[in-house]
Amino acid sequence: MRKNFLDEEFLLTGDMAKALYHNHAETMPIIDYHCHIDPQSIAEDKRYDSITELWLGGDHYKWRAMRSAGVPERLITGDGDPEEKFIAWAETVPKLVGNPLYHWTHLELQRYFGIYEPLTGKTAKEVYRACNEVLSKKEMSVRGIIAQSKVKLICTTDDPVDHLKHHASIAADPSCAVKVLPAFRPDKALRADKAEFPGYIAKLAAATNRKIEDLDDLRAALLDRIDYFDAHNCRVSDHALDTCICETAEESELKGIFQKGLGGEKITRRESEAFQTALLLTCARAYKKKNWVMQLHFGCIRNNSTTMFERLGPDTGYDAANDEGGNAPRLAALLDLLERSDALPRTILYSLNPADNSVIGTVMGCFQTDSDIPGRVQMGSAWWFNDHKAGMEKQLTDLMNVGVLSTFVGMLTDSRSFLSYTRHEYFRRILCNLIGTLVENGEYPADEEMLGKIVRDICYNNARNYFRFENL
Amino acid sequence: MRKNFLDEEFLLTGDMAKALYHNHAETMPIIDYHCHIDPQSIAEDKRYDSITELWLGGDHYKWRAMRSAGVPERLITGDGDPEEKFIAWAETVPKLVGNPLYHWTHLELQRYFGIYEPLTGKTAKEVYRACNEVLSKKEMSVRGIIAQSKVKLICTTDDPVDHLKHHASIAADPSCAVKVLPAFRPDKALRADKAEFPGYIAKLAAATNRKIEDLDDLRAALLDRIDYFDAHNCRVSDHALDTCICETAEESELKGIFQKGLGGEKITRRESEAFQTALLLTCARAYKKKNWVMQLHFGCIRNNSTTMFERLGPDTGYDAANDEGGNAPRLAALLDLLERSDALPRTILYSLNPADNSVIGTVMGCFQTDSDIPGRVQMGSAWWFNDHKAGMEKQLTDLMNVGVLSTFVGMLTDSRSFLSYTRHEYFRRILCNLIGTLVENGEYPADEEMLGKIVRDICYNNARNYFRFENL
Amino acid sequence: MRKNFLDEEFLLTGDMAKALYHNHAETMPIIDYHCHIDPQSIAEDKRYDSITELWLGGDHYKWRAMRSAGVPERLITGDGDPEEKFIAWAETVPKLVGNPLYHWTHLELQRYFGIYEPLTGKTAKEVYRACNEVLSKKEMSVRGIIAQSKVKLICTTDDPVDHLKHHASIAADPSCAVKVLPAFRPDKALRADKAEFPGYIAKLAAATNRKIEDLDDLRAALLDRIDYFDAHNCRVSDHALDTCICETAEESELKGIFQKGLGGEKITRRESEAFQTALLLTCARAYKKKNWVMQLHFGCIRNNSTTMFERLGPDTGYDAANDEGGNAPRLAALLDLLERSDALPRTILYSLNPADNSVIGTVMGCFQTDSDIPGRVQMGSAWWFNDHKAGMEKQLTDLMNVGVLSTFVGMLTDSRSFLSYTRHEYFRRILCNLIGTLVENGEYPADEEMLGKIVRDICYNNARNYFRFENL
Repeated sequence: MRKNFLDEEFLLTGDMAKALYHNHAETMPIIDYHCHIDPQSIAEDKRYDSITELWLGGDHYKWRAMRSAGVPERLITGDGDPEEKFIAWAETVPKLVGNPLYHWTHLELQRYFGIYEPLTGKTAKEVYRACNEVLSKKEMSVRGIIAQSKVKLICTTDDPVDHLKHHASIAADPSCAVKVLPAFRPDKALRADKAEFPGYIAKLAAATNRKIEDLDDLRAALLDRIDYFDAHNCRVSDHALDTCICETAEESELKGIFQKGLGGEKITRRESEAFQTALLLTCARAYKKKNWVMQLHFGCIRNNSTTMFERLGPDTGYDAANDEGGNAPRLAALLDLLERSDALPRTILYSLNPADNSVIGTVMGCFQTDSDIPGRVQMGSAWWFNDHKAGMEKQLTDLMNVGVLSTFVGMLTDSRSFLSYTRHEYFRRILCNLIGTLVENGEYPADEEMLGKIVRDICYNNARNYFRFENL
Repeated sequence: MRKNFLDEEFLLTGDMAKALYHNHAETMPIIDYHCHIDPQSIAEDKRYDSITELWLGGDHYKWRAMRSAGVPERLITGDGDPEEKFIAWAETVPKLVGNPLYHWTHLELQRYFGIYEPLTGKTAKEVYRACNEVLSKKEMSVRGIIAQSKVKLICTTDDPVDHLKHHASIAADPSCAVKVLPAFRPDKALRADKAEFPGYIAKLAAATNRKIEDLDDLRAALLDRIDYFDAHNCRVSDHALDTCICETAEESELKGIFQKGLGGEKITRRESEAFQTALLLTCARAYKKKNWVMQLHFGCIRNNSTTMFERLGPDTGYDAANDEGGNAPRLAALLDLLERSDALPRTILYSLNPADNSVIGTVMGCFQTDSDIPGRVQMGSAWWFNDHKAGMEKQLTDLMNVGVLSTFVGMLTDSRSFLSYTRHEYFRRILCNLIGTLVENGEYPADEEMLGKIVRDICYNNARNYFRFENL
Repeated sequence: MRKNFLDEEFLLTGDMAKALYHNHAETMPIIDYHCHIDPQSIAEDKRYDSITELWLGGDHYKWRAMRSAGVPERLITGDGDPEEKFIAWAETVPKLVGNPLYHWTHLELQRYFGIYEPLTGKTAKEVYRACNEVLSKKEMSVRGIIAQSKVKLICTTDDPVDHLKHHASIAADPSCAVKVLPAFRPDKALRADKAEFPGYIAKLAAATNRKIEDLDDLRAALLDRIDYFDAHNCRVSDHALDTCICETAEESELKGIFQKGLGGEKITRRESEAFQTALLLTCARAYKKKNWVMQLHFGCIRNNSTTMFERLGPDTGYDAANDEGGNAPRLAALLDLLERSDALPRTILYSLNPADNSVIGTVMGCFQTDSDIPGRVQMGSAWWFNDHKAGMEKQLTDLMNVGVLSTFVGMLTDSRSFLSYTRHEYFRRILCNLIGTLVENGEYPADEEMLGKIVRDICYNNARNYFRFENL
């Protein structure tokens, strides 16, 4: 029997799936442990003038879809009028059959704006008006949206040189119900091969009030900032690697690489990987001591269109999945190096290339021995270009097949938008449906008590325990 | 409820799928923009003596299946009697459970021969007789088959040195309803590393009535032939690459590589890739100017059995999918180079390795900005070893997830046979079922008008617009 | 309608699937042509004191799952009490939703112990008691279990230096119904790059009563042992390769590599691959002459945790899938080299990386010409980390799509446990369901006779013919 479009049983196809979702998943609060929202917007409880600003102001997922559908850049990131831009988006939406943006858009329209009509070119003007009217209401400030979404905790993504003053001001504000913690993302400090390196080192020196003249100084500065972030309740770090790396070099060579980077000299790929490996080891040892979680992202190539990078800068929709193989031996070697160095913290592994699931799933199983937490090394949630129904089903299935699904820390938005919390709903429906379907197929007993606990754990409890957000 | 074998609702599992197929897809004519049929057969309106000649005369898909099933080569490409060969094929067919050949065979028997009985060893003789009787009828000439199949336009695959006289004669023949256009496939001119290079350059010199003594001459000759093909209404080119390439070299080095190739000297892989990249850039710039479409195929290793290559030559069933990784950075670099050089035409990207879908899907999204057509860079249809239900569902799903399905230019046969147009039907059923299933699952509204338009566009209109076959 | 948990129609979803399973698959005996059980246990008709010994004594699949679920090593491979260990396993089981261990565990409880209650922490003590009671019965000796399981033939995995005396004693024992044949696994002789090489060569010299002082001696020794194994009815060999290899070198260089290996000198990767390729060619030529089957396994990285390797040794749950690409060109080159050298025996290709299915499936199709057996080169069954429902469905689907499923030699356990024969049942249910579903979908006629034969062949007859176990 045909299901209604995106109704309360959306994506749920059997009684057990429905029971798991409605009795267990739906009511759990949200921990969004990885995203890219601006903490200042929360500190200031920002409001939005229009749905165009909120939806199209910074969302490169939508920008890519519009470009692919033939919309001119003027109506995407250009100087088009907000309503005109919104209409261009609305005309794109019906073409996105099978794309997660189709579902995200309508989930957001339903949950935040009470709009149940599909968005099309025809309904665009009415939806635009209605959304803007809702946005003018008191409860649609940033904090209002967060509260409605039952989000209890957010981890932003922050550079070591960040002052964290917005985090501090939110923490000091008793009227703000959500916890907002920083995440430590030191990528720039690890890339001696980049033109920006010397300038960045200067900033890091300023932030730490130190001279950074050699590799030891850099290590000390990073450890300083880890302390600083820890004092601001940071519990998680994030490293973006081009591919998995594990390249070793003598300390003397590493020192030389630092000097080359500082002097703007050319650095080979091997040297860059050795430098990154060495500093990753420094950081990981500190994370381990502080019992932070380390996130490693790989499998991405960035800013692929030079023309558009020069026009719009990074994070504007010009990145892609990488398929350089050989991640398995390097990832295994890296985790082994960390383990032998007493420097393997709780670690989450993500790749943009879905073919890497089998690598991550089987490598992580080699580093779970005598852990202080079930699932010390995790396969991260389906991410970015894999953040859709098929991608999430694949990630969950791959994880189930070679690992222990019950220990999974679950969903993150990775988003720049305050309306993206519906992606947690999307994930939860897919999770419940996948597990419920196993029951319908006779592959697991109809034990709602056990499965409900697993669902609640994946939705919330596992993340709370894994990241040590115990006092939520 | 069990469906009947290959009836009118074949592969269609819900009401929306059936409506989309029967009301929208089924009646659309066909544009077969990429195939390997011989234009002479159309010019001469060739007829076939037997179903063996038509089915087994050149179809290396069937040959491979027969070899795998243990049929001796004598009954495949050898001197076996036509009926004996047909029986060997018929005995193979029932063993091909789950293989697309099973469906193609029965679609062709139904649509062209009115035979609805499954082909087996038992029915072989009767089917052989019945097919040959049908083949003797007037409407079963090559043009008759094409007309029955509602094919409006065919692009063959042609070498730059080809005279195109059959294309010209077809174009001049008002009794021929189908348009037959050439496609420009200059692979041999780009492979200075191959033993055939000097001989090929001599042929190209003859065809262009030029001396080709250096790289500039070669470039000029290629541009000549692009003009010549354009004058014969060519709208599309095709490049087969072993893997993605983007290797740059100084002009002086490139000139040297040309001379080495001409002299039969050994050329390194890097040199070969630099040479190909440079000439691809030359060609692509011309395609862009003429608004042709460029097809790039990669991920294939050819002629893997030396023994059989020496016996049967190329294209006889001894090729395979390649899995050399690192296509993403090279493909991104190549498209970037072309874009920066004002030389990125409308481009279709195909790989034989299904794992490359995520690479193609995410890289192409970086090169759609301010395009003159929706979906300027396309993920090609599931091709060759992926041309089956699972492969097409994967390609469509991967495309939907990271791109805009509605802009897709759809199916091609890539075939050497005039009975392969049923593969368009096969594709259309799979497409309609995939989209219809989204509706049945509540993932898209039951909007037949919108979805019917998307289906008709993918079946026909998108290709017509994309390749500029406007006056069809 | 919801299916009951793991009842007689487990994994079977339509009438044809049920008919194929119950009328054809279920009653076929088992040939387990690849496993790691100890032949001494059969020779001595070993008995087990407890289900802990039988289930947890050597099964690194379960160990990994327990580690991932947070169980301390003491209760896995450590000095924990057997009942305590069993309880730790029982508590892990319900967390393994979607993992094949969940199904294997309950299939084994049902088939061997008559226990139909799901295993959980709550039922652990009762199940422990009940299992141990069953284990005390006469029919639960190793031979009893094998007989109950309808296993007619087992191939163990044996080193060339093995004496094979247990195989001989079993063969000489008329009371033992099952045939137990050795398999020839000469990996250690091919790895001149390993520290163990000199010691291994000494053992091989002792086993062959020869001096092994140069490469020719090593070749002769291997051929001796192939003769010895052949005299013990060996029909199959097994080579574990890190990745596909095909590196050639002059005989003089190969001789030098042997001497380096013997002297414990460092050997490069290229040298090691050339050495392995050369000896593989030597062995393959002998296999071809004797009409043995050659198994090639690749795509595995082993002993990834140095810490745990030092504590527990190999095969303890610290291996992973490898993703180093470029297997296709090397595999094609290797098979071509063997074919040209009249040294390509019947060959089965396995990879731990499921992305390799398309490589294996398309490469193998290039080497089937004029074979003495349908499907001379085979895609091996979904193996190790792919040995689950999704993995088997993928392997079968990938094989169907590009090859001829009907020739497939089917399932192996690859197991160290005598209870694993239920994995053949698991495979057969999945196979029948996949084929049956094609019929329900109208993709194949409802021809139970033809499909039943295909099923019986894949379950048993193909392996019997392929490995030449004719007198079963």
